[in-house]
Amino acid sequence: LKNIKSRQLKLAVVATAKYIMPHILQAFCQQYPKVNVSLTVAPQHQLLERLHDKKDDLYIVGYPLEKVNTPLYPFVDNPLVVIARFDHPWVKRTEPIALQELSQSSLILHEPNSSTREAVERLFQKFKIPLQVQLELGSNEAIKEAVLLGLGVSIVSLNTISLNELQHSFAVLKVEQFPLIQKWAIAYSETISLSMISQTFFKFLQKEGKKVIQTANQAKLSVF
Amino acid sequence: LKNIKSRQLKLAVVATAKYIMPHILQAFCQQYPKVNVSLTVAPQHQLLERLHDKKDDLYIVGYPLEKVNTPLYPFVDNPLVVIARFDHPWVKRTEPIALQELSQSSLILHEPNSSTREAVERLFQKFKIPLQVQLELGSNEAIKEAVLLGLGVSIVSLNTISLNELQHSFAVLKVEQFPLIQKWAIAYSETISLSMISQTFFKFLQKEGKKVIQTANQAKLSVF
Repeated sequence: LKNIKSRQLKLAVVATAKYIMPHILQAFCQQYPKVNVSLTVAPQHQLLERLHDKKDDLYIVGYPLEKVNTPLYPFVDNPLVVIARFDHPWVKRTEPIALQELSQSSLILHEPNSSTREAVERLFQKFKIPLQVQLELGSNEAIKEAVLLGLGVSIVSLNTISLNELQHSFAVLKVEQFPLIQKWAIAYSETISLSMISQTFFKFLQKEGKKVIQTANQAKLSVF
Repeated sequence: LKNIKSRQLKLAVVATAKYIMPHILQAFCQQYPKVNVSLTVAPQHQLLERLHDKKDDLYIVGYPLEKVNTPLYPFVDNPLVVIARFDHPWVKRTEPIALQELSQSSLILHEPNSSTREAVERLFQKFKIPLQVQLELGSNEAIKEAVLLGLGVSIVSLNTISLNELQHSFAVLKVEQFPLIQKWAIAYSETISLSMISQTFFKFLQKEGKKVIQTANQAKLSVF
């Protein structure tokens, strides 16, 4: 890490990973101080364009992923859950809610083309249940605000909800087929050679990063 | 509003506006139920591409804005503030912090090309103070997590921080030249005619929307 160039680490990740990245970067920078980190957050299809244009050193993308020539390294679960405001009548239900019933409720969904929306669409298609959408929001923050305002229930990555939010604002509902387990994968352009710092971070993500993510999600699921 | 087509409202807004939009949409949908709303969140340069491609009915963009042929309708302030974790030593300072001092601290900044970063760069250039960046994060959520982890102080839109966060997690620091007042503007493609529902929402934003935003920001600033 003596080379000045190797001190730059350019990362790009899907939106669901943006909350956990500072925790991982904090742990990494404690071991490797003086690294300059830049983190871009973008939707899956833009990450693939950036990967193609070799804009960043490493990527965290949703997995599986079609139409990509680069090898993907799946490394950790990204569970999707159904959330409601803590005072929603469904929070007290002891029997799991059927997918059919969920589809007939006021469902707030991500935009088409988001990884989360696509996973939800695949699930509903599998069970041949139509999806009705009255409110379609292109950000996890807008979705959380809308759920807090009582506009409906939503399906989000557990990684986008903090432990504090699960203790005070939201509840994870018992719904058939949920948590719906998706995965994150690491990717990089195979046509360039990774810098020493990128190789180090790649290994760090697979071991320490994975641990940070799993520990956070286990703590959240243990609330229920 | 009898026309089925006019029931669709496609909005696209800058990331700083995504938190307040559900509140405005809630108020709007109470007056006009059965409207289907879709909200896209994207960086400024992508909003201009979408505007050019006529992808959405109405846009909320940062203002002023160069290189755009469409008229902009500035409608409300978007104040930028300097935030620190509640236990940061600067929180107790009574004298305002100088810009020079801020530039020498661990400053967590947005990525280049974001409206917030550009406003910060214009300010520092005006006073000929160099900007040092160790951590550059492409999302307000990653920035808030990093500030909470004690990695540094940051400059963000007041609209991205909730009243609850200001009461429990973050403090707005007294810094020279801050709050730095930016503006939001409404835009739409002049080459298409606005639907009745879009015209109604345009007027609603300028009157009720503005009120919702101002009331929220006044409540936040009164904490200090």
